[in-house]
Amino acid sequence: MASGGEVKLFGMWASPAVRRVEWALKLKGIEYEYIEEDISNKSKDLVKYNPINKQVPVLLHNGKPIIESLVIIEYIDEVWKHNPILPKDPYERAMARFWATYSEDKCRGAVREVFFAEGEKRVKAIKCLEETLRALDEELKGKKFFGGENIGFSDLVLGWMAFWLGVSEEVASFEVLDPKKFPWFTSWIDNFLKVPVIKENLPPRDKTVEFFHSYRRLHLAAPKC
Amino acid sequence: MASGGEVKLFGMWASPAVRRVEWALKLKGIEYEYIEEDISNKSKDLVKYNPINKQVPVLLHNGKPIIESLVIIEYIDEVWKHNPILPKDPYERAMARFWATYSEDKCRGAVREVFFAEGEKRVKAIKCLEETLRALDEELKGKKFFGGENIGFSDLVLGWMAFWLGVSEEVASFEVLDPKKFPWFTSWIDNFLKVPVIKENLPPRDKTVEFFHSYRRLHLAAPKC
Repeated sequence: MASGGEVKLFGMWASPAVRRVEWALKLKGIEYEYIEEDISNKSKDLVKYNPINKQVPVLLHNGKPIIESLVIIEYIDEVWKHNPILPKDPYERAMARFWATYSEDKCRGAVREVFFAEGEKRVKAIKCLEETLRALDEELKGKKFFGGENIGFSDLVLGWMAFWLGVSEEVASFEVLDPKKFPWFTSWIDNFLKVPVIKENLPPRDKTVEFFHSYRRLHLAAPKC
Repeated sequence: MASGGEVKLFGMWASPAVRRVEWALKLKGIEYEYIEEDISNKSKDLVKYNPINKQVPVLLHNGKPIIESLVIIEYIDEVWKHNPILPKDPYERAMARFWATYSEDKCRGAVREVFFAEGEKRVKAIKCLEETLRALDEELKGKKFFGGENIGFSDLVLGWMAFWLGVSEEVASFEVLDPKKFPWFTSWIDNFLKVPVIKENLPPRDKTVEFFHSYRRLHLAAPKC
């Protein structure tokens, strides 16, 4: 195990953003204390360490809080330099960061749209999500992972799609993960989920499906303004 | 002037995301060719170099395209190491990246909401924007720039607010930049706009106001779906 001071992670079991930070910590072999947050009743510590948006994940390293999952992963990679997550070459680093941004700016919103949309809006949202996946499929052509043979920054950041997109399909009754349409993207999902650190650090699928069923029901029942 | 191969920037004069890349290039003293894009009639080169979202800015370095303004600035800082933009210390780097993320995830959306909202929605949007500015004001307490005495990554990324927020106030007739409410944030704006590289690389204000007037009118007149 890599040492380097006291590391704590404030998380929530169903959160993809928390899970990607855990993957990074495990890839580096960093020992850490995990603190589960009750999102409906946030702890004083969470509010103290992340007063601005009061969200998980928060990484606490030697008492100092780091916020935002992508920022946390880059921090981890800069402090613990073994088993590098980002490539060394500046251009490859830029590509890795581009796909990470693509996850947050495009994929997250596209999945969310389909997850909550109904009727005609849903048809449109599915088309948009498929376009989003098309770009990933093309990027992954002929590759095992985004960076090549080993998982890296883009894989960790986009990794939520390997698990939570399938969960979303089940919860919201849609289907986009078609190996005929997206052969490279779906095979990346298989490759990603086979990596021991990932496979051993996923939430239980049934419990996750149940959680997102409630989440969706609550959202759809909420008054719209 | 720093050399390091051929550098081209595809931009659009009124775009804050393009301007922040230019500030970074100028801070480093990097020679580059600027190519103005007509957004309503995008060039073949833009579509070729940024097929995924076909947007500016695109930095072309020795023929290789880099996309997304934050990714471009980190790339510039890694390739041309003099006049560093990001701090050296991993924790300070994480803080700089956090505020950059805050610009893109919170500030941009909050300003956009006020810019287009009308009636009751606008009252709510202004409150939300003021909360967003409150966090910046607290962070800037007692400081000239985000990182201290010199401008750095957070300043460059949040720098659009120093110019375009005032423009937005004028175009959409609202007022949030009150030195009594936000003494540190408004004094940061003054400090930022005094930096020669910034002051000398801003679009003409009248033309920008005119541009965003048309942009807002077009958006508000567009059919809603």
